[in-house]
Amino acid sequence: MNATDIEAAADRIHGHVRHTPILELEPDALGCGAQLVLKLEFMQHTGAFKARGAFNRILCAPVPDSGVIAASGGNHGAAVAYAARQLGRRAEIFVPESTPDVKVDRLRRYGARVVLTGASYGEAWAASQARARESGALEVHAYDQPEVVAGQGTLAREFEQQCQGLDTVFVAVGGGGLIGGVAAWFAGRVKVIAVEPERCPTLYCAIRDGEPVDVEVGGIAADSLGARRIGRIAFEVAQQHVDSVVLVSDQEIRDSQRALWDSVRVLVEPGAAAALAGLRSGKYQLSAGERIGVVVCGANTDPTKFVA
Amino acid sequence: MNATDIEAAADRIHGHVRHTPILELEPDALGCGAQLVLKLEFMQHTGAFKARGAFNRILCAPVPDSGVIAASGGNHGAAVAYAARQLGRRAEIFVPESTPDVKVDRLRRYGARVVLTGASYGEAWAASQARARESGALEVHAYDQPEVVAGQGTLAREFEQQCQGLDTVFVAVGGGGLIGGVAAWFAGRVKVIAVEPERCPTLYCAIRDGEPVDVEVGGIAADSLGARRIGRIAFEVAQQHVDSVVLVSDQEIRDSQRALWDSVRVLVEPGAAAALAGLRSGKYQLSAGERIGVVVCGANTDPTKFVA
Repeated sequence: MNATDIEAAADRIHGHVRHTPILELEPDALGCGAQLVLKLEFMQHTGAFKARGAFNRILCAPVPDSGVIAASGGNHGAAVAYAARQLGRRAEIFVPESTPDVKVDRLRRYGARVVLTGASYGEAWAASQARARESGALEVHAYDQPEVVAGQGTLAREFEQQCQGLDTVFVAVGGGGLIGGVAAWFAGRVKVIAVEPERCPTLYCAIRDGEPVDVEVGGIAADSLGARRIGRIAFEVAQQHVDSVVLVSDQEIRDSQRALWDSVRVLVEPGAAAALAGLRSGKYQLSAGERIGVVVCGANTDPTKFVA
Repeated sequence: MNATDIEAAADRIHGHVRHTPILELEPDALGCGAQLVLKLEFMQHTGAFKARGAFNRILCAPVPDSGVIAASGGNHGAAVAYAARQLGRRAEIFVPESTPDVKVDRLRRYGARVVLTGASYGEAWAASQARARESGALEVHAYDQPEVVAGQGTLAREFEQQCQGLDTVFVAVGGGGLIGGVAAWFAGRVKVIAVEPERCPTLYCAIRDGEPVDVEVGGIAADSLGARRIGRIAFEVAQQHVDSVVLVSDQEIRDSQRALWDSVRVLVEPGAAAALAGLRSGKYQLSAGERIGVVVCGANTDPTKFVA
């Protein structure tokens, strides 16, 4: 995974994904004391960065008549369903039986066939694998496929084009698709800080143990960052190109959600406030004049549930 | 009021206000069938464009020790309080006695002295005038002062710098500070469409009657667009440089609020969705390939009250 792969992905998905804006903030904004620039990726199609990887994966391979298949009731499932529809392909999305109606309805609105099966994400995923073997559908993994990681990496390429002189970029980590792509793009030219909820520490534990390991996940950001194990691709990239991992508490995430609304009227899901929480937590030592980018990666949340 | 005034305002307020981003959208976005670009001005300090005019007004004149004074429990009051604090000045903000605690608290958080007086906005305003005569404080009008209108006009200058080739810009109208500044900046080079709620038709009625007249105001956008009479400055600019006025219903405004959230995860107040509603209503006849800018001007709303 390197910049060449990401350049190719950017060419491939051009016109299919949005060029999302950045917001340069004044020095004292958001309680950071940093020269802060936000990448407003939550304005992407389907409300999260996931459309980048989904389009790149689907555009990389010949898609059989049976279409594409994925397992996810969340941002990944929505992005795959959307990308498939835009490209004139069928999509089957496998989700656990416990998935709320609102998420199932959303996938159906994007034209997907939704299969409710299994008591957990793992069971739904296993069923999607079995179905893919039978139907021949193209599998789009939520984070651990080279095409998916390269697609997410286009966010970093775009960010760098918009904003010269970035010293450091903060990125939230779930399964690792985004951090893998971002770190591979910057490749040490810009420092990359991974931020994980204390209760979803997949990359932290993998680095500690020297290999991806299963972790217990929970907390307020688990719906978007709650992968049980970091992807192999992200782990390999991170070992080379991620400077450090910052862990944040649920309260720190909530405070950053609140700060984003109060200061810039941006309403995001907990997982997307995690990167900012990493910066605001004070657990990362800022240098004088350091220019910091923060990826605000998703806003698939219910505004009426927003907590002050 | 002309481009020279607005250039001077832009120099004056530089560094005090945010350079807000734009979002270029795909042709079928937001149900418009237009080549659409949003100006995301709700990310401005205090959540609305009003900071531009407030800073310009305060920076134009020597401010006495008694500070600045304004009448508004809404976006204007917050912007004046914020600008005064940033510039090290005192602020007195007059609001009607019926103003909700949440708005009063917000003004106080910005450091203003809040005076609750009178049964209506008009009474609070009259009291602020009397107080200004007594204290000598610098009055910052919500929309009908040249410095305020020129400050708001910097939004149009910034928008044009960010986005070449705009054919038409849609702007919501309350008292007219924003439309006055925007239309004065473009001065016919770009077509300006004013959008008003059917229930706050100040510019519409003024154009119909040939002069500013008092109108009854109400509906869901009245808190931000509910001035009773268009400002004299805006009226004069609009007669020359506003192409037409589109009236929109409360339901059309609500639908546009919903569309902004569904498609781009932007949550705004009703008044800020009005401009988009004007475009989506179909009451304006689009030309093929017309490149449309829409000003999304404020997000001072309670997310938990958001209605689908």
